[in-house]
Amino acid sequence: CFSDMYFFPDETAEVVDHAHLRAVLGMILIDFPSAWAGDPDDYLHKGLALHDHLKDHALLSTAFAPHAPYSVSDDSFSRMAVYAAELDLPVHMHVHETRDEVNQGVAEHGKRPLARLDELGLLNPNLIAVHMTQLEDEEIAAVAEAGASVVHCPRSNMKLASGTCPVQRLLDAGVNVALGTDGAASNNTLDMLAEMRAAALLGKLVADDAAAVTAEQALAMATLNGARALGLAEETGSLAVGKWADMQAIDFDRPETQPVYHPISQLVYAADRAQISDVWVAGRHVLKERMLTILDESGIRDRARQWHAKLAKHNQN
Amino acid sequence: CFSDMYFFPDETAEVVDHAHLRAVLGMILIDFPSAWAGDPDDYLHKGLALHDHLKDHALLSTAFAPHAPYSVSDDSFSRMAVYAAELDLPVHMHVHETRDEVNQGVAEHGKRPLARLDELGLLNPNLIAVHMTQLEDEEIAAVAEAGASVVHCPRSNMKLASGTCPVQRLLDAGVNVALGTDGAASNNTLDMLAEMRAAALLGKLVADDAAAVTAEQALAMATLNGARALGLAEETGSLAVGKWADMQAIDFDRPETQPVYHPISQLVYAADRAQISDVWVAGRHVLKERMLTILDESGIRDRARQWHAKLAKHNQN
Repeated sequence: CFSDMYFFPDETAEVVDHAHLRAVLGMILIDFPSAWAGDPDDYLHKGLALHDHLKDHALLSTAFAPHAPYSVSDDSFSRMAVYAAELDLPVHMHVHETRDEVNQGVAEHGKRPLARLDELGLLNPNLIAVHMTQLEDEEIAAVAEAGASVVHCPRSNMKLASGTCPVQRLLDAGVNVALGTDGAASNNTLDMLAEMRAAALLGKLVADDAAAVTAEQALAMATLNGARALGLAEETGSLAVGKWADMQAIDFDRPETQPVYHPISQLVYAADRAQISDVWVAGRHVLKERMLTILDESGIRDRARQWHAKLAKHNQN
Repeated sequence: CFSDMYFFPDETAEVVDHAHLRAVLGMILIDFPSAWAGDPDDYLHKGLALHDHLKDHALLSTAFAPHAPYSVSDDSFSRMAVYAAELDLPVHMHVHETRDEVNQGVAEHGKRPLARLDELGLLNPNLIAVHMTQLEDEEIAAVAEAGASVVHCPRSNMKLASGTCPVQRLLDAGVNVALGTDGAASNNTLDMLAEMRAAALLGKLVADDAAAVTAEQALAMATLNGARALGLAEETGSLAVGKWADMQAIDFDRPETQPVYHPISQLVYAADRAQISDVWVAGRHVLKERMLTILDESGIRDRARQWHAKLAKHNQN
């Protein structure tokens, strides 16, 4: 299960539906026109139409996805906040990703972005604050108090030199911290095993404590905490009676992962994506002995190569 | 090719010779007795015997491997320094791995460990200083001036919360920085592709600059810079007329690495160890279409399981 935040969520919904994956599609909101929508009204209108279209879908749902505090006005936020409260939907947003962004927020609004979101009624259990590399003690306390979730994207934060999310301090404060990959523009592989490992390793360095961000905590961040952030903890995120059968099998029978003393430690620190042998989504076997059952892998590679050729040609013009 | 530093280098040499791998074996030196040797004399004696034994070996060579400044006395260092100079051999050592170790060195010797090594005549082009997370500006300049090499172990430094090596500053100063995995105790996978990626990502975060530690620099750290540190740059580390055919083939024809716009970027940021299809050492095909040609993979897994059972039993007693 993943949460997506980009233009054309209707197209994404079709592809994800075809692939039989579970996802939350972002109803994007940004104060600038794009190929997807012309103005905030248009964004909200198209987003809500998608929400209505998907409202009875077993695997797909929607979240509000305002881009970030610096690209959405108070007016747009306020209108969205009304819908989010009425529909009780998650609000997925980049928040405090970089120091510059926080400084810019202070210069423009006289307050740090998180304080502005709080005043706009958005710091609540529906908030999914992505990145959060710039946090003061009182802000960590405020996020915990509000019951909001934080999505940590360690490899994106490293690649863009954005700063460091204080994961252990957030966990200690009782904040629900989940794990994100960010997109292909800032993270070349959308690989949750690698992201878990990076979260555990970077978390120790940032906390200056080798006992910080344990393997168990990293696994929870990648699974149940993510489901909680998305409001899906009753449906997925762990194997339990009454939840969907959303499962992966990981083959430990390789020299890289033998012997196994502690399965969760081995999973977080040693296993690789290539060892994922099987995946089930809502009980359906979508990856079987490393073969995709619905998607056409060689067709996907062919299309990637075709786009490469097209874009390379375009670059030469 | 790798550089090993642990007890029983003679046993390691046999296994590595059987596997037809290129390696530098450490003549370990430590002021404490171990199952391998009883005192500094004994360590030096056994190390030099190994050196003599391997002196005409095409793939194996030796380096002095004093454990660290805090575990080797001035007297032992001085005696080793004479041999190292006479034989012109690399000196592979953990240096400034943690803040505590540096503080302890100052308390015991009245100077930082790197200054002590300099006074003992060990800060020179033969020094391979591993870790180096605690470095002041003058120390970076001194390392550059001396022509010593630094081995950066990003994932070990993260997992142990040791601190951060200022890789970009070292590169800017002209220091030869190579890449290490450290051992299984602090890094669960000895995987150079993952280590390159971690070096590039962490290097940007530490430098507070997304343009720091480029993919090309990370690749050089994992290849030619390592050969330079080991004094093997004329023999391996790049593909060139007159060097050995030490090569890997990496299969990019997977959805994870298609399309390819920039092969080095794709290698560093997206490729995984499972995509290494073939490996040649001195022209011999030791991994062929993902199958080991010399080592018995299932036998290795079986032995790992047997040791697991033995150790688990031992723990219960």
